[in-house]
Parts: sequence; structure tokens; C-alpha cells
Amino acid sequence: MKRILYILHAILLSGVTAIAQQRPPAISSPEVHPDQSITFKYFSRKAQKVTLNGEFLKSPVALTKDTSGVWSVTVPPVKPDIYPYSFTVDSVQLADPSNTYIFANERFKRSIVDVPGDQPLIHSLQNVPHGKVSYRYYKSGTLGTTRQLLIYTPPGFNPNGKTKYPVLYLIHGGSDTEETWTTVGRANLIADNLIAQGKAKPMLIVMPYGNVRPAPMPDFTKDMVADIVPFVEANYPVNKDSKSRAVAGFSVGGGQTLNIGLTNTDKFAYICSYAPYTATEEFQKNFTNWSPDAAKINSQLKLFTISVGIDDFLYEPVKKNIAMFEEKKIKTKSYIVPGGHTWMNCKQYLATTLQELFK
Amino acid sequence: MKRILYILHAILLSGVTAIAQQRPPAISSPEVHPDQSITFKYFSRKAQKVTLNGEFLKSPVALTKDTSGVWSVTVPPVKPDIYPYSFTVDSVQLADPSNTYIFANERFKRSIVDVPGDQPLIHSLQNVPHGKVSYRYYKSGTLGTTRQLLIYTPPGFNPNGKTKYPVLYLIHGGSDTEETWTTVGRANLIADNLIAQGKAKPMLIVMPYGNVRPAPMPDFTKDMVADIVPFVEANYPVNKDSKSRAVAGFSVGGGQTLNIGLTNTDKFAYICSYAPYTATEEFQKNFTNWSPDAAKINSQLKLFTISVGIDDFLYEPVKKNIAMFEEKKIKTKSYIVPGGHTWMNCKQYLATTLQELFK
Repeated sequence: MKRILYILHAILLSGVTAIAQQRPPAISSPEVHPDQSITFKYFSRKAQKVTLNGEFLKSPVALTKDTSGVWSVTVPPVKPDIYPYSFTVDSVQLADPSNTYIFANERFKRSIVDVPGDQPLIHSLQNVPHGKVSYRYYKSGTLGTTRQLLIYTPPGFNPNGKTKYPVLYLIHGGSDTEETWTTVGRANLIADNLIAQGKAKPMLIVMPYGNVRPAPMPDFTKDMVADIVPFVEANYPVNKDSKSRAVAGFSVGGGQTLNIGLTNTDKFAYICSYAPYTATEEFQKNFTNWSPDAAKINSQLKLFTISVGIDDFLYEPVKKNIAMFEEKKIKTKSYIVPGGHTWMNCKQYLATTLQELFK
Repeated sequence: MKRILYILHAILLSGVTAIAQQRPPAISSPEVHPDQSITFKYFSRKAQKVTLNGEFLKSPVALTKDTSGVWSVTVPPVKPDIYPYSFTVDSVQLADPSNTYIFANERFKRSIVDVPGDQPLIHSLQNVPHGKVSYRYYKSGTLGTTRQLLIYTPPGFNPNGKTKYPVLYLIHGGSDTEETWTTVGRANLIADNLIAQGKAKPMLIVMPYGNVRPAPMPDFTKDMVADIVPFVEANYPVNKDSKSRAVAGFSVGGGQTLNIGLTNTDKFAYICSYAPYTATEEFQKNFTNWSPDAAKINSQLKLFTISVGIDDFLYEPVKKNIAMFEEKKIKTKSYIVPGGHTWMNCKQYLATTLQELFK
């Protein structure tokens, strides 16, 4: 027995030492306190200056270092929501190394802090039935490759049952990925909560990867219509009429939404564009000399919404866009709300329009 | 029409300008070349020194800066595999800002580079039928919270069909997350490929989040047996006998695998431990004064494997572990292979043992 104990002791020590050597001290960051103040921490003995940048801040704030090399700052209570943030360490911007929740994005590496409210927010994990999010591969004939997409199926979903569902095709922003609508936008939890409250219809939400580079933008419109929609309709129990299809998207995805939706009003009866970025060749080509049959389009569309925040850097162009559609006599419902070009706003745009789909 | 053109021009310009202002120049990193050399890039006008750290390198290499502030280095051809890497910018270690593929981990922030082979590797996305990976929530009575887990279902899976599947419960390493086995370990693609080749049985692979803090480790064993397995068996068409359940895991998860498996040989007939870290109170409590009924355990277990690389920092303790099990007359199959405590090795451990499960 002594020998076994000796062996185990050796095992314990060697493992612990090896792991201890390769790791910085354990710090917990961020820590959201009951009063909604938040403490952020970063470890570095060598850094000269560490600042926190967050969408809950007007301007960056400095962290201060203790004798062990742990930098920290506590910011005063912030409005409950999910916020992106990052550190700048000397000249380097980076995500919080202690935080697993990363903003899914191709260019910005930021972390996410979830500040809960006294009452659960529409994007909170609540004690309701949960749908699931599945990662799938589909073949894109248009792009000549296999791409990944995410599909939310609602609670009680039965792939072989008699119930046929409507589908929302939901597109991320410019440098985001197919994961941004779940990791940052919490589209799945917003749907869970609204369905539980009877405010949204049970539906599938398909979240594709919208970036097509270096090919031009129209390729994504084609990918959506020729590849993504057929893949979903071949593999899921869904209705296949335009009244059972919606397309929505944010920023560059909001522009793609306008291109996809308005050039395919026979296929999508619901178009929800969130803070659309429209300075693209595809938009210019589609809408510069556009002479739409407004009566026909208005009869085909059950809903066409454009949402934007008054502090959004795209506020002016979006307003002009809305005016352009109105001038063309296309029926448009606009949501002009407080806030900027942020995913805080984006979650609200989704929560609002989800309640209007397929009704 | 002129007015519309003017408006559109204004839209185009304002959007482009606003987006251009907030972004660094577009760089592509990493770029894997046909000869398997790789170019890494990082943008910073202010940094004094940028180095690349990668598991394909013996030691870090320096990047050099061009006049536009783009740092780059090209490393000579590397053996095809998936490798973690990161940059160190002055004193700051960070993931590659240009790369979406991030190593899912709670502490280390690293990126992943996928170096394809001339022939597809076992973890490559191949032209075979694909299963899907679903993100699910389950209620943990043990931990008093709702936790996320990932479930791989194989190609052709029908949740309401007559086919009942076996289940592998697959646990990540110490500071990893429930996503590490898919994002870094490619468990889903390895399973797709082995199933397509007829080398692995179609099975479900359940990937829970194994970290339990600050609660002691035994809570995860309890969570697995009392919460995770019942959740899976209530929601999926699976066989519920021990011969249809396997548990496997890497590093800390390899230690958890030993604790879960060997204290529940009536529930799991397959135990596959990859480079186990066993210096835990739970392991000490379970195995220090352990007097197992070896004949009974050997009759209950269909397979008990322990894998480790000869350059693994846990190689010596794992060897002692294997000796301890042999001394106790527990039948053990050991895989001692080249390589270190890496996910390159880990993928191979999984690919090897997947072929031995449920047969």
C-alpha cells in the first residue's frame, strides 16, 4: 500500500507542477455584481498600461495594477444587457483571456459580458422549454464548396411529425460569422422566450454564413435561393410557400436582406432589415434604376420592416432608404428607436419583428 | 431619377467611409500554401516586437514589419494537421485577430490553423454524409443550474425511428469548454469519416461541459450519472444498457473518465482515457485504498484503454497509472504513441478508440 501511495503522490505532484508552470494565476473576469457594477481583470507583470473598451462605456477606462500583476477596474452599474468589450494592453487590443464568451467575428476579437436584470430579459436563459441549435453542413453549388449553417428548431420540434413549420432566414453583420446570431444575438433564447409567452409562432431559424469573398455579393443572394432554402426544405418539415418564409439580417446582412427579399418577393413574404448597410454594388444594381410594380410587391409581401437606431452611423442613409421605398410606393414599416449600430439594438429588432412573422 | 442617384451616392459614401474608419486594413492570416508552408500576418503600427508561437514550432519565431504596419512571417512546410497558435505582441499573448477559428478554452486564447494533407486526413471535411452537432440545454439537479452540452447525431439519424443508438460521453480537457471537442478535436468529422468508411458504428457523441467550479470534482461524476445520461436517454432513441455506453476524455477529462467509468462499471462498459490528469482529490479518494473486484470489473468492461504520448508531460504519471491498474489485475489496453499533450494527439486517440466501441 505504501508503494501505491508513493506512486500516487508522485502522480499528484508531477501533474500539479507541470500544469502550474504553464498557467498564469487564476483570475475571474468579468465579475458582474448584484448592483450591475462589473469588475474586469487582466494579468500582466510586463504591461505598462491596460484599458477597458466596452459598448457600455462612453470612453475607455484604465485598469490599475496590484503588486501581483493583476490589473483591475470596477465600472459603475450598467443597464442590464449583453455588451461586447475588449482590453487594450499597451498598443494591443484583445479579448479578455479569462472569458470564454467571445464575439463571433472575423476581424474584431472581443468578449461578451452578460449583465442580468432584476427581471429576466428577453434574451435571458429562462425556465421555459428550449429549442435546439444544430450545426449543419450544406453543399453550395453556387459557391462550389461545403459551408456551415446553424438551424434553430423550436421546443417540441419533431422532424418526422405532421407539423410543418415556417422558416426565418437570419443573416449576420459584415464581418460576423454564422455563430454571431446565437452567441451575441441570442436568437435561440429570444425565440424560446417569445414562443413560451405565446408571442411568436414556433418556427425554424436558419443562420447561414453570409460572407462571400472575394466573389461579389450577388453570389450570396443566389446561394440563399438556390442552395440554402432548398437544403432546408429537403431536410426539415417546413412549408414551402412564400408566406412561410421570412428573411432578416443586420448591417451588411440587412442590405443582403433587401437584395434577397425585394428581388424574390414571390419567395419571401416577410422582409425585416435591421440597420441595413446598402453601399454595395448589388444594392446599386438592384435599386438605382428600379421601377417596381409596387401594387404587386405590396400584395406579395405580408411585412416589410426597416429598423434603425437614431445614434446608428447608418441612421441617415437608412432614413434615405426608407424615403426611397416610400417614394416607390412600397409599403414599409419602420422602427426608429434609440441606440446605435450595436447588437444590443439588434436583439431588440429581432425580438420586435419575431412577433410579427407568420401571423 | 437624378435625386435617387444622388441619395444612393450619399448612402454609398457615408456607409463606406464610416466602415472604413473603424477597421484596420484587411489582411488574410493564416495563409496555408500548397507546399504546407504557412504565412501569418498581424497589423500594428505601434508594436515593437511580434512573435508567433505555434505547436508546429520548436520555439517562437519573429514576424517582420513592412512599411504599412503589416507584420508577417512564413514558416517552412509543416506536417498536415490542425495546430493551435498565437501571437505575442510586445508583452501580450493573443489569438490571431484575422482568424475566426479560435481554440475554445477558458484561459488560453489561441487560434487554429488547419493544414490539409495531400490525402484527406481523418478529421478533414470530406465528401461523405454528415451528421449534425446540436447545442442543447439540460437541467443539472446536481449543480442546481442549466448547462449546455453538444450532441453529435450520425448521418441518417431519425429521432423517432426504430434504430436505437449507443452513446459515447466525451469530456474535454481542464480549461476547455463543451465546444473544444468539435472546434479543435473535430469529433464530429472524425465520426463522419469513420462511419462512412465502415470503421466506426453509428453512435451519438455527447460532449458536456466538464468544469465544475468551485465545487469539488466528484460533482461532475454525479452530474454525468444523475443528470446528463438521463437527459440524453429521455430525449434520444438510445440503448440504455452499459454495453451501449462509453465514456472518454482528455487530460483532466481523462481523469474524470477514470473516476466516472471505474466507479460505475455497471453503467459504462467502455472506458477510454486519453493522457489522463489524475492529481485530483477525487482520484486520490477513489483509488488510493482501492481493492477492486478485478474479475467482476473485467467481466463488466468490454474495453478499458489508456492513451498517452511519449513526450506528454503526463507520460510518467500515466505510465505509473497503467502499472497501478495492472497490479490490481484490471485489464487495460494501453496506447503509447509519439507526441505530446496536444490536441493533435488527442484527435488520434479518439480516431483509434472510436473504431473499438460498441463492437
